[in-house]
Amino acid sequence: MSDFNIHILGCGSALPTTRHLATSQVVDLRDKQYMIDCGEGTQVQMRNLRIRFNRLGHIFITHLHGDHCFGLPGLISTLGMLGRTGDLIVHGPKELSTFLSCILSEFCRGLEFKVIFDPVDTTAHTLVMEDRSLSVYSIPLKHRIPTCGYLFTEKPKEPHIIREMTDFYQVPIRWLKDIKQGKDYITPEGEVIPNFRLTRPPEPSKRYAFCSDTAYNPAIIPIIEGVDLLYHEATFTESDGARAKETFHSTARQAAIIARDAHVKQLMIGHYSARYEDCSILKQEADVIFPGTILANEGLVQSLI
Amino acid sequence: MSDFNIHILGCGSALPTTRHLATSQVVDLRDKQYMIDCGEGTQVQMRNLRIRFNRLGHIFITHLHGDHCFGLPGLISTLGMLGRTGDLIVHGPKELSTFLSCILSEFCRGLEFKVIFDPVDTTAHTLVMEDRSLSVYSIPLKHRIPTCGYLFTEKPKEPHIIREMTDFYQVPIRWLKDIKQGKDYITPEGEVIPNFRLTRPPEPSKRYAFCSDTAYNPAIIPIIEGVDLLYHEATFTESDGARAKETFHSTARQAAIIARDAHVKQLMIGHYSARYEDCSILKQEADVIFPGTILANEGLVQSLI
Repeated sequence: MSDFNIHILGCGSALPTTRHLATSQVVDLRDKQYMIDCGEGTQVQMRNLRIRFNRLGHIFITHLHGDHCFGLPGLISTLGMLGRTGDLIVHGPKELSTFLSCILSEFCRGLEFKVIFDPVDTTAHTLVMEDRSLSVYSIPLKHRIPTCGYLFTEKPKEPHIIREMTDFYQVPIRWLKDIKQGKDYITPEGEVIPNFRLTRPPEPSKRYAFCSDTAYNPAIIPIIEGVDLLYHEATFTESDGARAKETFHSTARQAAIIARDAHVKQLMIGHYSARYEDCSILKQEADVIFPGTILANEGLVQSLI
Repeated sequence: MSDFNIHILGCGSALPTTRHLATSQVVDLRDKQYMIDCGEGTQVQMRNLRIRFNRLGHIFITHLHGDHCFGLPGLISTLGMLGRTGDLIVHGPKELSTFLSCILSEFCRGLEFKVIFDPVDTTAHTLVMEDRSLSVYSIPLKHRIPTCGYLFTEKPKEPHIIREMTDFYQVPIRWLKDIKQGKDYITPEGEVIPNFRLTRPPEPSKRYAFCSDTAYNPAIIPIIEGVDLLYHEATFTESDGARAKETFHSTARQAAIIARDAHVKQLMIGHYSARYEDCSILKQEADVIFPGTILANEGLVQSLI
């Protein structure tokens, strides 16, 4: 398995069904976890899918519809009961702050960790968060209320040491960190061994774009150009296109057009309307434009390859 | 099946597990539904258990811990999306009002039905609600925060007409309603046929008591004396009795003592701590005092018999 994986906790839309749950995903990167949206039932899905609670540091909320955030009260309470002490940072539209304050004041007095709210400007493509492993940027989306997607951009990895070469030149261990960061090695005799002799380049960094909920919006194409994986909502089929337009959602065909025009490597669709008993109709529609479209499903773990 | 049934949607305690969900039940009586508590995931369980949304008029909340009310935002939103127009009445401790107001103002603008909040005095045994089918009373409980249980008391049913007798006396159809309500029949000739000749008494009315969450509290015994079914929390076993005391919960043995001393007809236990992989240990403990104790489980439908 890759070290950059997306866990699908829920990929239904507003009305729950027996087939799909409200939206939530966990981005698992180099052993850290980042949550995108937190619909009702998210904490139960984490249990069911055996996703641990203690590596989660950031939650990114796209917008203030219940199916994207009604799992927050339960998840935050449970983290408290599990004895968490580290900060939890919740990023999302500024409107989220009232709901969060209400939960914290009514239910979470005595919590032993801080919930820090970071308001996100949903109208701008801007840096939202950065740590050692990645940078997360907002993606302005077009929905009935302020909404943004998120672009997860892995930071460059370190090159690999070529062990045979460092052995050959008898490089002391204390040098290895500098060499990984690009330095040449200088032998005790003063000979310079160029870095490229000692290392292989790292695997290219990967990028994941999450775009839900949104009407068809080609303005996002430059932002998501060439990403390794695009999750794009596909609430409806083309034959329900009028309903898509009215509710500011996309059809499967529109999701595929965005993916094709942005030259993404893989497309995953989700946020299915409750009206479709069988979502393969959405895949068929997307496949015509973007062959190999992946259908999101609860429990699916998709690696960025 | 009886016409007074309890559907168990969730019977776990605060921490969700893969085995049990947060507390919620639906009381189904003469084709009307009343919900008790609404933990996270309740609306999904209603879908899974094929419980319809449109016969639900009242929700009774016991207390303001998340595992008893975090399903309210999602359920109310979903009722709105399903086009509900009839009032929804939410009964519960007065502290619930802030949470409800927050949900309604942040997420439910444009709802086409009214959510009416009815504050319940959790310290008194008092009438909370009454309709044609039943009366619901509060049961003061002992927990870490204001908490009450609820006693559902079926109203007397109408007696059954003895068809052979009304045929014999040629009773006109327009008289039947009065006879059901206890009147004698007077023939055109002026002869009085006493009501007891024309009717059989109805089945006795039934009572259901829901008591969760609570420490061992014999003060409830006079209130629940002789009920047909008692649901009593049994979060812990006796060997975890210290933890029960500390958290104001009951052991299975304590639940059974209450049931025995109140001479209830049936006892169902639930609200299991996440620590028990297998809850039959709780049943074994209760059975010693109250043989035939029923273990609540998600999806169970228990009839009052």
